[in-house]
Amino acid sequence: MGEGMTIKVAINGYGTIGKRVADAVACQPDMEIVGVSKTSMNADAYIAKARGYPLYIADMTKRADFENAGVSIAGTVIEMIAKADVVVDATPGGIGLKNKPMYEEHKVQAIYQGGEKHTTTGFSFNSSVNYDGAQGRQFVRVVSCNTTGLVRIINEVDKEFGVEKVRAVMVRRASDPGDIKRGPVDAIVLDPVTLPSHHGPDVQSVLNHIDITTAAMIVPTTFMHMHTVQMTLKKPATREAVLELCRAHSRIGLINKAAGIKSTAELKEHMQDLGRPRSDMWENGIFEESVSIVDGNELWLFQAIHQEADVVVENVDAIRAMASDVPAAESIRMTNEALGFVAVK
Amino acid sequence: MGEGMTIKVAINGYGTIGKRVADAVACQPDMEIVGVSKTSMNADAYIAKARGYPLYIADMTKRADFENAGVSIAGTVIEMIAKADVVVDATPGGIGLKNKPMYEEHKVQAIYQGGEKHTTTGFSFNSSVNYDGAQGRQFVRVVSCNTTGLVRIINEVDKEFGVEKVRAVMVRRASDPGDIKRGPVDAIVLDPVTLPSHHGPDVQSVLNHIDITTAAMIVPTTFMHMHTVQMTLKKPATREAVLELCRAHSRIGLINKAAGIKSTAELKEHMQDLGRPRSDMWENGIFEESVSIVDGNELWLFQAIHQEADVVVENVDAIRAMASDVPAAESIRMTNEALGFVAVK
Amino acid sequence: MGEGMTIKVAINGYGTIGKRVADAVACQPDMEIVGVSKTSMNADAYIAKARGYPLYIADMTKRADFENAGVSIAGTVIEMIAKADVVVDATPGGIGLKNKPMYEEHKVQAIYQGGEKHTTTGFSFNSSVNYDGAQGRQFVRVVSCNTTGLVRIINEVDKEFGVEKVRAVMVRRASDPGDIKRGPVDAIVLDPVTLPSHHGPDVQSVLNHIDITTAAMIVPTTFMHMHTVQMTLKKPATREAVLELCRAHSRIGLINKAAGIKSTAELKEHMQDLGRPRSDMWENGIFEESVSIVDGNELWLFQAIHQEADVVVENVDAIRAMASDVPAAESIRMTNEALGFVAVK
Amino acid sequence: MGEGMTIKVAINGYGTIGKRVADAVACQPDMEIVGVSKTSMNADAYIAKARGYPLYIADMTKRADFENAGVSIAGTVIEMIAKADVVVDATPGGIGLKNKPMYEEHKVQAIYQGGEKHTTTGFSFNSSVNYDGAQGRQFVRVVSCNTTGLVRIINEVDKEFGVEKVRAVMVRRASDPGDIKRGPVDAIVLDPVTLPSHHGPDVQSVLNHIDITTAAMIVPTTFMHMHTVQMTLKKPATREAVLELCRAHSRIGLINKAAGIKSTAELKEHMQDLGRPRSDMWENGIFEESVSIVDGNELWLFQAIHQEADVVVENVDAIRAMASDVPAAESIRMTNEALGFVAVK
Repeated sequence: MGEGMTIKVAINGYGTIGKRVADAVACQPDMEIVGVSKTSMNADAYIAKARGYPLYIADMTKRADFENAGVSIAGTVIEMIAKADVVVDATPGGIGLKNKPMYEEHKVQAIYQGGEKHTTTGFSFNSSVNYDGAQGRQFVRVVSCNTTGLVRIINEVDKEFGVEKVRAVMVRRASDPGDIKRGPVDAIVLDPVTLPSHHGPDVQSVLNHIDITTAAMIVPTTFMHMHTVQMTLKKPATREAVLELCRAHSRIGLINKAAGIKSTAELKEHMQDLGRPRSDMWENGIFEESVSIVDGNELWLFQAIHQEADVVVENVDAIRAMASDVPAAESIRMTNEALGFVAVK
Repeated sequence: MGEGMTIKVAINGYGTIGKRVADAVACQPDMEIVGVSKTSMNADAYIAKARGYPLYIADMTKRADFENAGVSIAGTVIEMIAKADVVVDATPGGIGLKNKPMYEEHKVQAIYQGGEKHTTTGFSFNSSVNYDGAQGRQFVRVVSCNTTGLVRIINEVDKEFGVEKVRAVMVRRASDPGDIKRGPVDAIVLDPVTLPSHHGPDVQSVLNHIDITTAAMIVPTTFMHMHTVQMTLKKPATREAVLELCRAHSRIGLINKAAGIKSTAELKEHMQDLGRPRSDMWENGIFEESVSIVDGNELWLFQAIHQEADVVVENVDAIRAMASDVPAAESIRMTNEALGFVAVK
Repeated sequence: MGEGMTIKVAINGYGTIGKRVADAVACQPDMEIVGVSKTSMNADAYIAKARGYPLYIADMTKRADFENAGVSIAGTVIEMIAKADVVVDATPGGIGLKNKPMYEEHKVQAIYQGGEKHTTTGFSFNSSVNYDGAQGRQFVRVVSCNTTGLVRIINEVDKEFGVEKVRAVMVRRASDPGDIKRGPVDAIVLDPVTLPSHHGPDVQSVLNHIDITTAAMIVPTTFMHMHTVQMTLKKPATREAVLELCRAHSRIGLINKAAGIKSTAELKEHMQDLGRPRSDMWENGIFEESVSIVDGNELWLFQAIHQEADVVVENVDAIRAMASDVPAAESIRMTNEALGFVAVK
Repeated sequence: MGEGMTIKVAINGYGTIGKRVADAVACQPDMEIVGVSKTSMNADAYIAKARGYPLYIADMTKRADFENAGVSIAGTVIEMIAKADVVVDATPGGIGLKNKPMYEEHKVQAIYQGGEKHTTTGFSFNSSVNYDGAQGRQFVRVVSCNTTGLVRIINEVDKEFGVEKVRAVMVRRASDPGDIKRGPVDAIVLDPVTLPSHHGPDVQSVLNHIDITTAAMIVPTTFMHMHTVQMTLKKPATREAVLELCRAHSRIGLINKAAGIKSTAELKEHMQDLGRPRSDMWENGIFEESVSIVDGNELWLFQAIHQEADVVVENVDAIRAMASDVPAAESIRMTNEALGFVAVK
């Protein structure tokens, strides 16, 4: 990108993640939204219109559904892609792979989400770990919300103390707040029943030297996942040194004791009170009181991960990593500043 | 109030309702927040600090809890009240009555919430019904979220068609989103078991000529109440004429079919996407598709009521009704404009 | 059926309803289970085995899945049907219609559930209303749990006082307790958004002279539906007279005040404590305290309806109505006695 | 106890645990219920009456509440205790300690639940670990449901392979199914926020040589807790050898893959289908598919623990351990047989 040029970004799939990435891109000084796409008319189309994002659809037979509702259609998804430098593919898991030939044909760079496999892109991204490796790639995958949350804290601890082994249990939200179809209503569901879960290997797609075993289950809540993370360290650590690492990372938020927050619901309420867009928590929410050193070399902590939000900032960085020469630290600073990060209390 | 003077408002009880009223007051051109009060340190204190609201406490022995957490205390609740023209009492139900002698002693006007009884003030308020009656009163009660929602729609329909009888079933949220203590987790709770519920008489505290019977239950959700409202009309009505009434009222929002919203969760998500502060829906959310005329003279409809939000705008109007000479229509316009109302789609 | 002969019953679809009907049939003195069917191996197959019910499957390629798990397969669904006098079709909604030609070909009587349309059989059944009309029919439909619950109470009140108009709001459970897929987790869902709901016409499929308007929604709970029922009466009634009607009907249970039960969860717990099979409540659970006469001629009440159970006893009676000459009152008595009905306190 | 004598058991606190222990005691050949106690009238009193258990109350001023509801009162709690050899104190946590002087004065043996501290009795009991140690003691504490579940599996694995270290994460149900007051409705609550949780030391009250670190949280479900248990072993183990240990223990149930059960809700449904009283699962429910050996010496598994049930059988054994000379293995066999244990599939 030349000086003063903006990166033209299209969002293919204007849903839970796509609408958040669109707004985050739109407020960056070096990016602009050239279009967003949807498959069928619903309330999100009114939001795209209110934001002024040109709206594209794959199936033009549905054009009337939108236009009868007062929402203009700018053209087809292929027309949208032709206007973009980078496409953020936020379609449901598995669809991204089917879209790949389209991106290849139009020679556009594309960013996939964690619902796609590592093999779809051959490169799994985290801003703090391998930003530079994304430069010039046509395809990059931003890992899932859970993996992003694990990678952030493991990488920091590993750099400072060395991580011999990670054991993590992920208690996952059943559905996003606006999703009324998925359950369960009253159950704890093992997902998967088998152990270990796939989250360990997914962390290794970014941090391939880390020995990690994970377990995962689903519980009937809509706000955030909760991770119990245990790391056996190579070097001795103090609780205070670990807290210091957290404070030093712009995407790790420490929830302090005085705030009296001990649940995902209270944490979501706090994000809402802070005036965050969509009450989003882009950071790992680590509970300061939980951070403990057990038996000398075992670090234990709880962290809340907002499933709709933590990958949003990673997507913005991935755009810069692929399509500009802005260095990692500067990109992270720009992304955070544009969103008006306010520290999690 | 003289020309150019601002009404000095104190919020006694900076919780779910209080923090919303504080922000709504703060953005009005003719009001200012002179202080907010809390009983113990928690995350809300950080929010008051971030907003720049002077923070007062009743029990000064707790001062250190706040100051050790970096939050300054401006003084006692009594000192706060001494600075105010109007106090919005947003303390938990029943506490307001205990505060009354304090307000009387300090000759300050006070607004109570629906958790207090009608007899505490002798005047129950709704902006659209009896704004003028509040003028000059020392004590006014803004009726509860459910009653406010019922009053708004019943009054409009009654003025146009005459209401012979109202039958309403209120399905209420179990707890606010940030409240982790109240259940149930998996039950429908009759509250009360006896019929009719107290909501009918509470509507009559504002609209005393309306014949209304109500039933109420609690279900395990955190977002919004849902009302099934049936009104037997005195004059014939058409569905379109009722929709027109709704469109004409600035605090009744119609949720149109194209938005595809059929639940409280999707409606909350839409408020969030619109960028509303705290995702608040200040309006009655009436589902356009549900509005029906049955058997010629029975109007049926579903409306969603955001328990944390619909009374917020009524509180702001009540302040003006009591402490200024701004007429009702102008107050409503000012309140709405300052909050940047965007129509519910 | 000759003297001493038993009615041979097959259960096509051994799921939530099917497994309950199977056990209820098995304990009747004049019936026997000749087989139950399943489509794929799961825990229910172990239950069928433990009960000694011959297990049949439609798709014999799945035989190994069962037999490798230690469950014998007795044959195909068609072989099962050939052994039966009456088939209870408890397959998922819509499948029953597809099975109809099979039942016609094998000249077997079949009972459908409320998930099938009235037109599939032309006859919708309730033991208290139209038992005699089922005699000799090949196809009968037992109406849904909600409709069964409404029909029971409306019919009793109508016979005694005359019902001019019924208005009912059904607050429905989101999923059965063992169903982990269906949501919502945290929402009130209008189902349908349009008013009135289809439940009124469904009541009319049994009681065609009743004027009824209904509304329905879904809430995140797994135990029982809750109905708010309002009936405008033709003749004056007293609360005590209505309670007397309830006490006189063997499938209407009154939940008395001293039990302190005010929710579906506590009611389910009480069924469990009573030792009911699967904690089933076969009766309408009417809350005694809720029964009220308003404005002289309006009856209001709350009733809980156990979605998995109330139709079970109706299915048993429908079998007798279709395939024996046992009169209605005797069938109801036999069904109740065999299950060991204990009054709901 | 002499030959043919029965142990006289009183249940102080006829609630969730008390009513289950009462029924389990009542079906033992060598025990009888001499009375159960309640503090106020509710549905449970009807159950005690239906079972024929003499009902006692502490506060005789409430006698009329019971008797007006048709439930006879046999006398005071003190009179009940005077008739008993052993009292099972199933009062809410903390009340048991207050009852201790009463038991001491009346020289009656008493069994406490896990809500009381270890120091209240000085002896924490598990049938498989320290049955013999209870003999002749006046006070014994049956550890909590979570601790009982952990102790069972850890002890078996430790005896066979040696356990170097246990790390367990407990995801706990928010409230019992019939409890409509406790939440949260939609949140994951850290309980406690600090790490490690108190469950490790509580395991050590029974197995004091085990090195164990635990974390605990609460989720909005009513059926069962779910444990992720990781044990670092001293000797090499195979998955099959661990499964064999589970199969050999009468209170560890293996949930096999063919049953298709992957959640607490499906497991509860299966207990219900088996005809278990109150759908109770007295065993640890270990998911066979989850049992894994990682990195050679790390055993991982998921186990479901029914919070209302697993301690019931331990209480029955504790009675025998304290008040008879029946040996441990024989007591466990008698308890299981009387309840009609059917293996969890």
